Amino acid sequence: MIPQWVIEKKRDGGVLDEAEIRTFIDDFTAGKIPDYQMSALAMAIYFRGMDDAETAILTDAMMRSGDLVDFSNWPRPTADKHSTGGIGDKLSLMIAPLAAAAGLAVPMISGRGLGITGGTLDKLESISGYDTRLSIDRFRAVIESVGCSIIGQTERLAPADKRLYALRDVTGTVPCIPLITASIMSKKLAEGAETLVFDVKCGCAAFMQKREQAQKLAQSLTRVGRALGRRTAALITAMDQPLGRSVGNAVEVREAVETLNGAGPDDTRALTLALTAAMTVTAGIHPDYATAHAALTALLDRGSALDVFRRMVVAQGGDPRFIDDPSALPQPTCRVELRAPTSGYVCNVDAREIGKVVLQLGGGRISVTDVIDLSAGVDRLVQPGDYVEKGAVLMRLCACDAARMDLVRSAAQNAVSLSDVKPEPPVLILENMDMPA
Amino acid sequence: MIPQWVIEKKRDGGVLDEAEIRTFIDDFTAGKIPDYQMSALAMAIYFRGMDDAETAILTDAMMRSGDLVDFSNWPRPTADKHSTGGIGDKLSLMIAPLAAAAGLAVPMISGRGLGITGGTLDKLESISGYDTRLSIDRFRAVIESVGCSIIGQTERLAPADKRLYALRDVTGTVPCIPLITASIMSKKLAEGAETLVFDVKCGCAAFMQKREQAQKLAQSLTRVGRALGRRTAALITAMDQPLGRSVGNAVEVREAVETLNGAGPDDTRALTLALTAAMTVTAGIHPDYATAHAALTALLDRGSALDVFRRMVVAQGGDPRFIDDPSALPQPTCRVELRAPTSGYVCNVDAREIGKVVLQLGGGRISVTDVIDLSAGVDRLVQPGDYVEKGAVLMRLCACDAARMDLVRSAAQNAVSLSDVKPEPPVLILENMDMPA
Repeated sequence: MIPQWVIEKKRDGGVLDEAEIRTFIDDFTAGKIPDYQMSALAMAIYFRGMDDAETAILTDAMMRSGDLVDFSNWPRPTADKHSTGGIGDKLSLMIAPLAAAAGLAVPMISGRGLGITGGTLDKLESISGYDTRLSIDRFRAVIESVGCSIIGQTERLAPADKRLYALRDVTGTVPCIPLITASIMSKKLAEGAETLVFDVKCGCAAFMQKREQAQKLAQSLTRVGRALGRRTAALITAMDQPLGRSVGNAVEVREAVETLNGAGPDDTRALTLALTAAMTVTAGIHPDYATAHAALTALLDRGSALDVFRRMVVAQGGDPRFIDDPSALPQPTCRVELRAPTSGYVCNVDAREIGKVVLQLGGGRISVTDVIDLSAGVDRLVQPGDYVEKGAVLMRLCACDAARMDLVRSAAQNAVSLSDVKPEPPVLILENMDMPA
Repeated sequence: MIPQWVIEKKRDGGVLDEAEIRTFIDDFTAGKIPDYQMSALAMAIYFRGMDDAETAILTDAMMRSGDLVDFSNWPRPTADKHSTGGIGDKLSLMIAPLAAAAGLAVPMISGRGLGITGGTLDKLESISGYDTRLSIDRFRAVIESVGCSIIGQTERLAPADKRLYALRDVTGTVPCIPLITASIMSKKLAEGAETLVFDVKCGCAAFMQKREQAQKLAQSLTRVGRALGRRTAALITAMDQPLGRSVGNAVEVREAVETLNGAGPDDTRALTLALTAAMTVTAGIHPDYATAHAALTALLDRGSALDVFRRMVVAQGGDPRFIDDPSALPQPTCRVELRAPTSGYVCNVDAREIGKVVLQLGGGRISVTDVIDLSAGVDRLVQPGDYVEKGAVLMRLCACDAARMDLVRSAAQNAVSLSDVKPEPPVLILENMDMPA
């Protein structure tokens, strides 16, 4: 195979065959195809696209560039959920244990936050002692005993994706459905779960801002997963408002515990149930959505999911005291309450602005090497539809660096819009794709 | 400047500004922008194009990446010709001395052949002792004393083009008018000639196979040249049949001498006169094409151009004996005549096939490190319109490696088509663009 012929074929709108894609990815992973040919091919794919078959082969080749976790002959059906990322998205912390409580085995490999988007791994590191770097053998052992485990990505899982993603990031080839699909799916497939459910976020604070793009990505993910022998489903969910009333790391773990206790904000609880139901129905544990919803609601309210969560934390070396005593989580040295200038209904909370505020408070990273202030973030955040009296708390800013408070104060205040008229409740689940009835 | 923002701007169809283009090229030349970002930008330019202003800035930035030859305040007007390359294209060997004989100063920096296309530099190296690697000072001295000089590209002339061209070659970004324009023009402009005439070849054996593409390239070259303060003209000429009756290196030098002697094949003589006239008229030496044609014909027939050629060869260290005694050129050890199977009119000679034959005989390179057999090639080649009796010579294959003769014999034979009907004479000059009346 001559690499430039493959580039030219895609440039001219051709459909690449299996040998061309596999050899290109294998040689790229082996360092035989240089970055400048890979980036040229990525740009040609940006303009010309890839059909489902090409995307599936690309995904499979990238998946096979590293280790594969094997869950074949596992006693329980395996399932995982992936979110494209949003503000306040702590759902993995509830979904993994809830799905496990319902009878699924959940091998979940999560990422860190970058930019305004948080990462499950950072949130888990708010828990003293929690080890996100288990070996694959220990990962499997925790899943076997507890039902779920959440760890960080290893170097050996889909290394082709790691290299290609770093290259796409600096060559203007990130926003491209086939490449996004292959990047997400190669890692998720390498984890070995039979069932994959995707939470494709859509809105002003999401990677996919337009509904049509989100639909295309959801279709691409579910089709490619099926082409490679997995069961898949996807929900398109709104990401214009932050999810829940806390955004940050320690503050989100606290909210996750509340939700696992059967409480928590309505939107957080509703999405936890909907996505977990998508997993259990797709995996065949529950026959339909209504049954799943009822069963999962009961498990959540009975504390079964919280029990699994506690056992997972302990199995991974974490100190579980924070579950009953939130003060055991990293605490900010500085808290500032922002108050409503007038009375009225909250009609909008700009998720993108809140994301930037948390980032500037030290709760996120601008570059991958930045160190996070795990205590930093926003809590007690109002949500659309809330009625506030003049002077009531709109949100509380938390951080260990008092100087940062002043920097974000007015942006944070402006992120909340008040109105005299009670707004329509925002729609949370925009679309439920490929779910059995 | 963040390089990926520039890539993204072009990817999304934006017009790059001067600072963006200059910084990108300067940083690429300095090694601060890696190849993988340059190749991604090149692919984005392939899809989105560049307007004339962007192309001119790109060209200027690439020109300024190295040394500039200065001909300001030169006593005679300076002019050069560039061809996009064809089979049997030995025109530079006649045009440089003829233009010099007419009163122009001609600083010509030529390239080597690659693939089926020959290079003027290889042809000149058939001349024993001829030095193609003059310093810029000696280059200027030869032009001052003789009127013209033909040398090879130095490392220090437009080095950004050298790097970018090598990258484009392996990333599928060669066929792109703005990038081709910048590549050709950055080198030609660095040579310092005030007037530039382009011979844009069009046809089955040319880089531009379609008329529309050739027109676009010709327009782009002439416009960008004018935007950067030069006088420009372009001819679009046919490249379906080989030019002249000899294709190779030594065999073409022989044909060049014949043409400089006022003889030579009709097409070779006609194009020599047309392109040199374009130079003298554009440079202001002759008021119009008819005057130029008459004056140049007289110079050619009087031997003035041959005299300049002889002095240039001597000034560059070459042994001029080959001019009077062709046997002083590299001679093949093996010659095979191919003969007409029937009587008839030659209706087509496939230039691309003849190019391949010469390449396989050893007269060209497949890779840049290949060593050429300077004696290899084809001569005594028939041309469309010739009438041949059965058994008459169609062409003569020349090489030092007899084994290669058998490899090409049938392809060479099949390259010539005979017919009972006398064909229309092929049109040589398809278009004369931007020539003053």
